[in-house]
Amino acid sequence: MLPRGRPRALGAAALLLLLLLLGFLLFGGDLGCERRKRGGRAGAPGCFPGLLMPRVPPDGRLRRAAALDGDPGAGPGDHNRSDCGPPPPRPSKCELLHVAIVCAGHNSSRDVITLVKSMLFYRKNPLHLHLVTDAVARNILEMLFHTWMVPAVRVSFYNADELKSQVSWIPNKHYSGLYGLMKLVLPSALPAELAHVIVLDTDVTFASDISELWALFAHFSDTQAIGLVENQSDWYLGNLWKNHRPWPALGRGFNTGVILLRLDRLRQAGWEQMWRLTARRELLTLPATSLADQDIFNAVIKEHPGLVQPLPCVWNVQLSDHTLAERCYSAASDLKVIHWNSPKKLQVKNKHVEFFRNFYLTFLEYDGNLLRRELFGCPSQPPPGAEQLQQALAQLDEEDPCFEFRQQQLTVHRVHVTFLPHEPPPPRPHDVTLVAQLSMDRLQMLEALCRHWPGPMSLALYLTDAEAQQFLRFIEASPVLAARQDVAYHVVYREGPLYPVNQLRNVALAQALTPYVFLSDIDFLPAYSLYDYLRASIEQLGLGSQRKAALVVPAFETLHYRFSFPHSKVELLALLDVGALYTFRYHEWPRGHAPTDYARWREAQAPYRVQWAADYEPYVVVPRDCPRYDPRFVGFGWNKVAHIVELDAQEYELLVLPEAFTIHLPHAPSLDISRFRSSPTYRDCLQALKDEFHQDLSRHHGAAALKYLPALQQPQSPARDG
Amino acid sequence: MLPRGRPRALGAAALLLLLLLLGFLLFGGDLGCERRKRGGRAGAPGCFPGLLMPRVPPDGRLRRAAALDGDPGAGPGDHNRSDCGPPPPRPSKCELLHVAIVCAGHNSSRDVITLVKSMLFYRKNPLHLHLVTDAVARNILEMLFHTWMVPAVRVSFYNADELKSQVSWIPNKHYSGLYGLMKLVLPSALPAELAHVIVLDTDVTFASDISELWALFAHFSDTQAIGLVENQSDWYLGNLWKNHRPWPALGRGFNTGVILLRLDRLRQAGWEQMWRLTARRELLTLPATSLADQDIFNAVIKEHPGLVQPLPCVWNVQLSDHTLAERCYSAASDLKVIHWNSPKKLQVKNKHVEFFRNFYLTFLEYDGNLLRRELFGCPSQPPPGAEQLQQALAQLDEEDPCFEFRQQQLTVHRVHVTFLPHEPPPPRPHDVTLVAQLSMDRLQMLEALCRHWPGPMSLALYLTDAEAQQFLRFIEASPVLAARQDVAYHVVYREGPLYPVNQLRNVALAQALTPYVFLSDIDFLPAYSLYDYLRASIEQLGLGSQRKAALVVPAFETLHYRFSFPHSKVELLALLDVGALYTFRYHEWPRGHAPTDYARWREAQAPYRVQWAADYEPYVVVPRDCPRYDPRFVGFGWNKVAHIVELDAQEYELLVLPEAFTIHLPHAPSLDISRFRSSPTYRDCLQALKDEFHQDLSRHHGAAALKYLPALQQPQSPARDG
Repeated sequence: MLPRGRPRALGAAALLLLLLLLGFLLFGGDLGCERRKRGGRAGAPGCFPGLLMPRVPPDGRLRRAAALDGDPGAGPGDHNRSDCGPPPPRPSKCELLHVAIVCAGHNSSRDVITLVKSMLFYRKNPLHLHLVTDAVARNILEMLFHTWMVPAVRVSFYNADELKSQVSWIPNKHYSGLYGLMKLVLPSALPAELAHVIVLDTDVTFASDISELWALFAHFSDTQAIGLVENQSDWYLGNLWKNHRPWPALGRGFNTGVILLRLDRLRQAGWEQMWRLTARRELLTLPATSLADQDIFNAVIKEHPGLVQPLPCVWNVQLSDHTLAERCYSAASDLKVIHWNSPKKLQVKNKHVEFFRNFYLTFLEYDGNLLRRELFGCPSQPPPGAEQLQQALAQLDEEDPCFEFRQQQLTVHRVHVTFLPHEPPPPRPHDVTLVAQLSMDRLQMLEALCRHWPGPMSLALYLTDAEAQQFLRFIEASPVLAARQDVAYHVVYREGPLYPVNQLRNVALAQALTPYVFLSDIDFLPAYSLYDYLRASIEQLGLGSQRKAALVVPAFETLHYRFSFPHSKVELLALLDVGALYTFRYHEWPRGHAPTDYARWREAQAPYRVQWAADYEPYVVVPRDCPRYDPRFVGFGWNKVAHIVELDAQEYELLVLPEAFTIHLPHAPSLDISRFRSSPTYRDCLQALKDEFHQDLSRHHGAAALKYLPALQQPQSPARDG
Repeated sequence: MLPRGRPRALGAAALLLLLLLLGFLLFGGDLGCERRKRGGRAGAPGCFPGLLMPRVPPDGRLRRAAALDGDPGAGPGDHNRSDCGPPPPRPSKCELLHVAIVCAGHNSSRDVITLVKSMLFYRKNPLHLHLVTDAVARNILEMLFHTWMVPAVRVSFYNADELKSQVSWIPNKHYSGLYGLMKLVLPSALPAELAHVIVLDTDVTFASDISELWALFAHFSDTQAIGLVENQSDWYLGNLWKNHRPWPALGRGFNTGVILLRLDRLRQAGWEQMWRLTARRELLTLPATSLADQDIFNAVIKEHPGLVQPLPCVWNVQLSDHTLAERCYSAASDLKVIHWNSPKKLQVKNKHVEFFRNFYLTFLEYDGNLLRRELFGCPSQPPPGAEQLQQALAQLDEEDPCFEFRQQQLTVHRVHVTFLPHEPPPPRPHDVTLVAQLSMDRLQMLEALCRHWPGPMSLALYLTDAEAQQFLRFIEASPVLAARQDVAYHVVYREGPLYPVNQLRNVALAQALTPYVFLSDIDFLPAYSLYDYLRASIEQLGLGSQRKAALVVPAFETLHYRFSFPHSKVELLALLDVGALYTFRYHEWPRGHAPTDYARWREAQAPYRVQWAADYEPYVVVPRDCPRYDPRFVGFGWNKVAHIVELDAQEYELLVLPEAFTIHLPHAPSLDISRFRSSPTYRDCLQALKDEFHQDLSRHHGAAALKYLPALQQPQSPARDG
């Protein structure tokens, strides 16, 4: 605590202090800088210009910010810039900050999201993200940011593949590959009017407000163009092992995980030529870059030291193997940006790694929905669609018993498509993707499903951010699942009390890449032969091109949770005869599948056509461009039935396949159903939603929709699963 | 951004600025204060002494900090102290900060934890929490902090019930009840050597580092003793409705959700007498306090305005109904502490309530384990047991195939006992508590369990912080569960990859309050009559007092997940005969229950004794002080078997009850079992753990333990559930 003297005395003390500071500012500062310059310490091409600002640290001491080696005899706190350095000027309250990130592939896309979450958590300014991406990352991140709807965040994409040719001539051994070099071309790739940008690696985590980093641009001299933190290892000193020949660098060199770029000055200085010349020259004697862009940045800086502004080391605390980062900070509170620049990532060894890991996990598992909070006080363009959504939500009547349903239906869920590495299936004209959705409590179905369905799958998972990480570990721990690159997992982030079953189905359906889809549910296991059989049937029946049809896969169920799966229709019929299997929902809701006509199916040798009837909800194979599911049905009830009504209204033929079958495994009832069973409101609401569904049906199909009216007015059985 | 001029020019500008500030400091400041004092604005008993500090805002303007009404014509940013006020001096880096909170009951205990999480998230200093609690809150919070093991946090408890008599004479209408008044007696209740403390209501959330708040103590004049934020409503103006007669206050008065208390000065000033005199006098004309301690604080301050130091309003942004808080902040970044002081809590209406709610949810759902991160840089006493734990963990061999098991066994899980309101059962000599453990995927068992077991239950739930909130909503939505006050739910927070089944059982067992416990599993439903029958049997058999026995409840299972539960032993035997029921694990592991001797049970009219045999794992009723479960068995396998071995080694008689039964319901296999099935390491490890278990057994029981050796060397069946 500060001393608490008498006010007058304090005023006098303050005056004295000010005069002291004043004296120091006029004389002491420049001297300090000279001393350092003459000291010629490695990696200190310029003086830290904190002394040129009106504020001065309370202890009157000034230090160079970026170097790891302190003055001899200085205490540990001496390296701690954030503790005793002058507070940097902050950008004006609502200034737009620009951030550029290069990102390619599925895994880096996940990393970027964690980085962005940490940045958004602390930010107080509007942000413009400039993402240089390959096609995979763009597909993921475009959808993610579109559905995330974070206020005061703008995102622009740049095609990394178009930039490849500019760096592909450089031999590079770094694990980040070709994309690791792409930061070099940002001055030409980013818009010409963009003058300042912060460039970040995908493996950094913010522990502070990015505007403090942005404020360091103000420390640049007239000629400096690149702000960098010193490299926190001895790599560039070239003494790590015998015959270690690193690229040239000033002393320890600089790390390029966090860069402040004055794009305007680099363009003026002829950056394009500059780095290419340097790289070409060095590559005459060196075989390849080891640390990608960083080697080239350092070589250029060695040649043009006036370009660089060293940044305080806390802005890029590097957890590489054998890191010297500990010399940089003395307390947890010093850390600003943490950089996981070891190939070991979270498994890196370090005195404080538990701290760093907990910090990283905070954002990895943080509910991204909570970052949708408005940056009020800074007027900004709302995200696309946000205003309409706000209006629609505002128009809902809180007294309406269906309020929760309608609110859930309007909820825009964050969607992270292809959460894990995924190989799209090769284009084949009759290929079929199995489409389903699930939440955490059905994960244990995945292995069996993979064994039963050797073809492509598109699965939507309804998870929290923390569950998504559990899911990741679950997949990694399973050799069966880890081996399958043709299963695409799309994470839809949880929000709201009701399970948005049809929204999930639509996400999985939209991401299917084959011409046909098998619309299944996660608790069904298809016949082992079904994938091959469906492709053959599609070809034989000329589905799609000649015929507009939905192929029905008859559904069965077992009530035993240990059960030997039939290998053929003959075996299945035998199990049916001894009561080990039933037709699906035989006991409590036979109407759902009665039109499939199981008696006929027993004998059938060829596909046969059946007629739609009320409450019919078969599992079907349809072309990918089939009608979407109606998202108004959330939680439980009528979600598949409505889809089959829509198919019938659009005149899809319903053709039952004689050799196809799928079997439902028992499971504990889901929480949504327990709720349905106990709540009359839930059921009344479902009726209201059905009425509205029929009104829409009539609007689209006219008098033809009359056919469905009686079916929509039947009471709903309380015992049916979604 | 700041202008980037030439260094020399900037130096000169800085000098000019300093001189200007200097002049202002000497003359302008006091004048400004005078002006304000004479203005006599409501609620401004003192001048904000920012001007007495050496640092001065860059724009040279000084303002009173706490009032809601700005200068006429001032822009919205003018109310924003954090934006343009002088940065307060920070406490020295490792200074210990003291925080006092009054907390009573189950619900407030949950609130306190969310408050503490937000505080810990931003804090950079060691903290000492002074918790004034009733017995319920103490029981919860003592265990919670003990198991949380947060570095650099000390917790002291004070008995609220002993303080009650000092405030119970005050008639009070506020919803916080008697405990709402207890802040008044803190100066005498807290240790005499404690001079400064921050006092917080349980319904505040931090959005900033508490050390910034602590630093405001330095602004106190020599006589000020209470730092408070102005009340952000017109309540004390007395014009809210006709005949509204609030307690006396200076202008809008002050809110006591956040208080900076100079305990030393209050004690010196005779606070004890002071507030009592004022309260007694006001109560001559006023019937009761409406806002608890706040009314009395305000009445005292009205009489002794020199005591109060007004604090910047952002340190207590009050979301009461009809709040005026919006006048306080202009941007999200201004907020420091948010105060949910409406009885509507999160449902309160407010322009920015979405923002506030998201902010609150951040900490509500935040994984508290992540706050265990070390405050490195500040040397502090490690939490009790932390050093031994670190040593034990450090001694583990990462190459040991059982590394994960041993690590999981050593994990100290945060435990929140009686997460929901709970009425302990009245003391009855033969009462039995059902003890079980579960995770999220078994929640839907709870309603049925409540219907089958009308007696007390003690259930351990293995959840994440976010899941604990889902669980809360699940209970609230169920009339069956919400009605049961005799079911105690203990949340054990998830950490690590393996399910700590025996640690969970031990938590539930330790919290059982009746003399006997029924050690069950969550997927079993007991006979409807079991609770009554067990109590009668315990009495008849003289269990505990005369006999050391474990009463065996025979276990059955159904493989159908729709099933009509038998109402009597006769009905059960009939179902068994038609194959609708089986004895438990009849198909895959009959050894687990064979010693129960089901054939004898069919005919039995009286309890009969059975002998222990290898792999026996019956469900038993035992005295509460029975041996604990062995926590080395985590994940799956041998967890109950080891417990029965221990009971037998301690010479418990095994008595089968002729009318008792419990039935296992089917469920999908848990993830832990899937993993066991696919992993030979898992099974090898289990054998290693069994060997070590036997070594310990031999140590305790000597040669008598030899009896169990063959049983421990049998291969484990892969298909058994935990």
